[in-house]
Amino acid sequence: MPNMSDNAEKTSKKAFDLASVLGLTLAVVAILGGQALEGGSIESIMQPTAALIVLGGTFGACLLQFQLANAMASFKAVVRVFQDAKTNNREVIQEIIRLANKARKEGVISLESDAQKISDPFLKKALTMAMDGVEPKVLRETMELEIANLEEEAEQPIKFWEAAGGYSPTVGILGAVLGLIHVMENLSDPSKLGSGIAVAFVATVYGVGLANLVFLPVSGKLKLKSKAHLVAKEIMLVGVISILEGENPRLIEDKLRSYLSREEQEVQSESAGTGQKKAA
Amino acid sequence: MPNMSDNAEKTSKKAFDLASVLGLTLAVVAILGGQALEGGSIESIMQPTAALIVLGGTFGACLLQFQLANAMASFKAVVRVFQDAKTNNREVIQEIIRLANKARKEGVISLESDAQKISDPFLKKALTMAMDGVEPKVLRETMELEIANLEEEAEQPIKFWEAAGGYSPTVGILGAVLGLIHVMENLSDPSKLGSGIAVAFVATVYGVGLANLVFLPVSGKLKLKSKAHLVAKEIMLVGVISILEGENPRLIEDKLRSYLSREEQEVQSESAGTGQKKAA
Amino acid sequence: MPNMSDNAEKTSKKAFDLASVLGLTLAVVAILGGQALEGGSIESIMQPTAALIVLGGTFGACLLQFQLANAMASFKAVVRVFQDAKTNNREVIQEIIRLANKARKEGVISLESDAQKISDPFLKKALTMAMDGVEPKVLRETMELEIANLEEEAEQPIKFWEAAGGYSPTVGILGAVLGLIHVMENLSDPSKLGSGIAVAFVATVYGVGLANLVFLPVSGKLKLKSKAHLVAKEIMLVGVISILEGENPRLIEDKLRSYLSREEQEVQSESAGTGQKKAA
Amino acid sequence: MPNMSDNAEKTSKKAFDLASVLGLTLAVVAILGGQALEGGSIESIMQPTAALIVLGGTFGACLLQFQLANAMASFKAVVRVFQDAKTNNREVIQEIIRLANKARKEGVISLESDAQKISDPFLKKALTMAMDGVEPKVLRETMELEIANLEEEAEQPIKFWEAAGGYSPTVGILGAVLGLIHVMENLSDPSKLGSGIAVAFVATVYGVGLANLVFLPVSGKLKLKSKAHLVAKEIMLVGVISILEGENPRLIEDKLRSYLSREEQEVQSESAGTGQKKAA
Amino acid sequence: MPNMSDNAEKTSKKAFDLASVLGLTLAVVAILGGQALEGGSIESIMQPTAALIVLGGTFGACLLQFQLANAMASFKAVVRVFQDAKTNNREVIQEIIRLANKARKEGVISLESDAQKISDPFLKKALTMAMDGVEPKVLRETMELEIANLEEEAEQPIKFWEAAGGYSPTVGILGAVLGLIHVMENLSDPSKLGSGIAVAFVATVYGVGLANLVFLPVSGKLKLKSKAHLVAKEIMLVGVISILEGENPRLIEDKLRSYLSREEQEVQSESAGTGQKKAA
Repeated sequence: MPNMSDNAEKTSKKAFDLASVLGLTLAVVAILGGQALEGGSIESIMQPTAALIVLGGTFGACLLQFQLANAMASFKAVVRVFQDAKTNNREVIQEIIRLANKARKEGVISLESDAQKISDPFLKKALTMAMDGVEPKVLRETMELEIANLEEEAEQPIKFWEAAGGYSPTVGILGAVLGLIHVMENLSDPSKLGSGIAVAFVATVYGVGLANLVFLPVSGKLKLKSKAHLVAKEIMLVGVISILEGENPRLIEDKLRSYLSREEQEVQSESAGTGQKKAA
Repeated sequence: MPNMSDNAEKTSKKAFDLASVLGLTLAVVAILGGQALEGGSIESIMQPTAALIVLGGTFGACLLQFQLANAMASFKAVVRVFQDAKTNNREVIQEIIRLANKARKEGVISLESDAQKISDPFLKKALTMAMDGVEPKVLRETMELEIANLEEEAEQPIKFWEAAGGYSPTVGILGAVLGLIHVMENLSDPSKLGSGIAVAFVATVYGVGLANLVFLPVSGKLKLKSKAHLVAKEIMLVGVISILEGENPRLIEDKLRSYLSREEQEVQSESAGTGQKKAA
Repeated sequence: MPNMSDNAEKTSKKAFDLASVLGLTLAVVAILGGQALEGGSIESIMQPTAALIVLGGTFGACLLQFQLANAMASFKAVVRVFQDAKTNNREVIQEIIRLANKARKEGVISLESDAQKISDPFLKKALTMAMDGVEPKVLRETMELEIANLEEEAEQPIKFWEAAGGYSPTVGILGAVLGLIHVMENLSDPSKLGSGIAVAFVATVYGVGLANLVFLPVSGKLKLKSKAHLVAKEIMLVGVISILEGENPRLIEDKLRSYLSREEQEVQSESAGTGQKKAA
Repeated sequence: MPNMSDNAEKTSKKAFDLASVLGLTLAVVAILGGQALEGGSIESIMQPTAALIVLGGTFGACLLQFQLANAMASFKAVVRVFQDAKTNNREVIQEIIRLANKARKEGVISLESDAQKISDPFLKKALTMAMDGVEPKVLRETMELEIANLEEEAEQPIKFWEAAGGYSPTVGILGAVLGLIHVMENLSDPSKLGSGIAVAFVATVYGVGLANLVFLPVSGKLKLKSKAHLVAKEIMLVGVISILEGENPRLIEDKLRSYLSREEQEVQSESAGTGQKKAA
Repeated sequence: MPNMSDNAEKTSKKAFDLASVLGLTLAVVAILGGQALEGGSIESIMQPTAALIVLGGTFGACLLQFQLANAMASFKAVVRVFQDAKTNNREVIQEIIRLANKARKEGVISLESDAQKISDPFLKKALTMAMDGVEPKVLRETMELEIANLEEEAEQPIKFWEAAGGYSPTVGILGAVLGLIHVMENLSDPSKLGSGIAVAFVATVYGVGLANLVFLPVSGKLKLKSKAHLVAKEIMLVGVISILEGENPRLIEDKLRSYLSREEQEVQSESAGTGQKKAA
């Protein structure tokens, strides 16, 4: 199974996720550029106090809501938002078809040596269980628990950043109201009224901006990436069970290819060569 | 199967979606007309800076949340909103009944030549699998995965524009607050106070207007169109399986017609002629 | 089956839906009366420009989101909100019990003549299929598709008015902000400041008022009415299948009566006479 | 079954629901007390016009949305919020165990006389059907329809007060905007400006206060009470079916006790005496 | 089973939940620190009247919505937010594997003495039922009801604090509007205008702050903790049933380990020793 690990390495080169980089840049340039074009200075929206209130309040609430391990995993997950490590489901399917063909020719038990070499822990566990003679029903039950477990784990950072996106605008408003209270108590000096209100409003800008330009999109991107990751596991599970049940490799391929998007299916057809469509 | 492709061509002439064109026109005329009637000038709500902030911020957030391919597909999907390419489910049913009758008289295997000529890739794949002797249960499983996959793909633009409709009003408010901060810092010149606030408010108008008059309705229309498209696939799947299981063509028609709306059912009855209601 | 059609006619007299008429009157009287009591004139909240913006923007967005046919059906559905055409489920049950008793005594096939006379198209289709020898499983599948289809159709106007109730307040705010922009640009004439702001606020009144006093309640009432309508279809389906399976008419009645509300059940018991409770 | 009716009477003494009384009192005292402590007079927030707008608009919208019968039932249901008529599930279980033991010793048919004496109409219907020889599957189907029906009925007031809680704050804002329009039109007399705004704000206080301190909590409490009520019916249904299927009374008790909360289970264990834990 | 109880004691030492303590501290320091940095005094946001309105109104609404017992349990549950009593699922699995091995060697009935010593009431009840010869299907049904019941109970405090987080900001706004009404009525003394508005705004700060920095995060943390707790019960149930059905202890372990997070699985593998991976 040297192919598999090669591919794994190739996909793990982890290019930049272009959309994430472009998106964040576009948002920041638009806001700061707009501010500059309107004649406002960048310094006027740089208020450390407002940043303290909004970031401290938001992450304080998030820590109170989540476990420490969740919080740390959520910060680490942000790296994934900017990496383009898309799971290559086409290669997963090709590997499974290879295994299915081998099982057909040399018997399922011949896959024992392959199972040892597989790098993906999920596929390895499924195949090892199959080698150990576990019956398909039990194997499916166990591996579906694994998938549910992976899903659970992937959901923690998604929920963390969604929560941050929920708390941050209201904490921003909290900061603004605190600022306005301060302004209102010092109405006697009207010359400072305007700049006081301006300072207060910066907290709102931080809260609303962080939520809508960072926290919520990050949560959404993580959800998309987790989904693609879990589909790969489902392909592996369906594939291993189909092999165990001795299904025709061509039918297995037809079934597994249904998990690919239309674009991926087209590439798949081409790379799979020509002999396939008629070879029943 | 020349009928089918003819029909496909006919339906692909893609007239305008009248409701979409009317709706967008009505909304724009109402807002701009109202603005004019109130004595406001159109120029006063044309602020490139506000547009930069709202559009840049909104699409920046969307890019951060979605993949680049999703974003491009979502912009392309907007074309569909203004095209009236309604899937003609009546014709799909007629084609399936034709195949069912042929299968009844000449055997299922006689459909092999028909399968080659079908233009719809979904129906073609289902029928080809049936010709290859795939059993109904496996065929259903595979094609249901295909439908789920098509649904998944159709949902991306729906979610993209829904997200845009969620980000845009808050980014508009962000732009307004930035503008107000600028105004507040220059309170010393009260003569510019009003126009400064006016400029700031334009960002709100853009954000709220784009969300409610464009982004969210576009998302909703795409959802409606995707639904109609998926129903056609479901009709095809149920039809092919019923043919495979040798069901009576008249019963198949009764079952499939239940997928049509009442209006479509009436047209169907007429075009299907008179001999049908009593022909048990 | 003359009873059935008589009843159908009786229920189709379509009295006013008292709650709808009272509710709309109460809301309008309360708002306008309150306005008058506060010393405000009715004219001051009659602004054609605000109406143009709010209605044009809201229905423009709705047209962009829905199909033209949906929109027209949704406007027609408003009539139903004010009509009290409650489906008389008690009579539906009595009719089914009558058919069940006849089927028991004279055989299921004796219902053929009854099937021709039934006015409800759903019950007619179900009974005709049963007469044609369609087996219960297929009949249930087909008729459940019909119910899902009817539900789908009934949901369109519900969603249309819900969407209108969602767009209208934000379009109202859009109109208000446009008005405020106009006011802010003309701050030089403070004497007109107040009345300008007042005019701007009228758009908010229209948007919030239409959504909360008309669009959303109309959507809710349509949902209630559609539900009652679909329950009648479900009673018919369960009834026909029970007849087909030769169940005891008394058991069928027990089962179907469970679909009635407690009040309806009590009336049912009385009208069904006395011999029933002990007649096992 | 004299026990049962005794218990029913006992539980129907309907003490006050302490939490509801305390909650409403606490909320009113806090708001009015706060108002008094701030030096505001109670009269200044007593505005019949605002009350007319908020109550008229809210209940107008509710009447338009619901049926007249729903509305009246919803007002009646408020009484239940303040009554502590908790369904005594422990006694329901004891009664079922008694019946199960009797059925075991004297045969299921011996319960016929008990069925006549039962006061709860649901349990009575279930037991009577069992006596009539209805088979468990049909009995379960019929009684589950009954439960769904009871649930449906119980949901109407919950939805009514939830809708009222949704309409009331926006109608309050409507009233406030109407008041502000009036104020803005009379800016020429600045001395009345403040009090005019104050009057306008009272509508907001009414709308937000009624929704959050009355309508929504009432809806929530009704939901809790309806849930407890439906659990009792489910216990009865599971119990009767278990009796019909001749299950061991001790196993029935084990199963039914799982519906009780932990506190109730402990009391149950004690009241059930000691001989039970080992008596297998 | 001395191990089990030892472990139970060890885990019940209940260290602090570091995230909760850090989170609450961070939020409070950020808000108060920000307030101090902006030059505002802490006293200016200490308003007993505002606290009375917000706390009284919020908990009044909660009491009206919930039962008294729910409310008290919800306050007690707050303690759990700050305790780190994580259920040790690894030890639960080890215990079950020990029982499975014993059952394999000495027969299921040999677990009778173990059942008496188990401290967890859920596992004890499940094992006792198994000893009493209850068949797996009934055991599963009964214990799933128990789990549903535990879930129900755990949800009450989650819903209570979620409701408090919903009511508190709107009650805060209510308090602010009441304060503004008072200010507006005394416009004649403009020198007090600012401080009056400041006081009014404090109610908003309390309402929004309590909801976002306390109530909602507390509800979220309780949800996380309840989930972990219920997973332990599910492991116990699946384990006992697998033992009853005589499954291979190694397969049981494979299945149960799927409930662990990846980190826990790694520790598990290590502590389980080396002989396991190859021992098929």
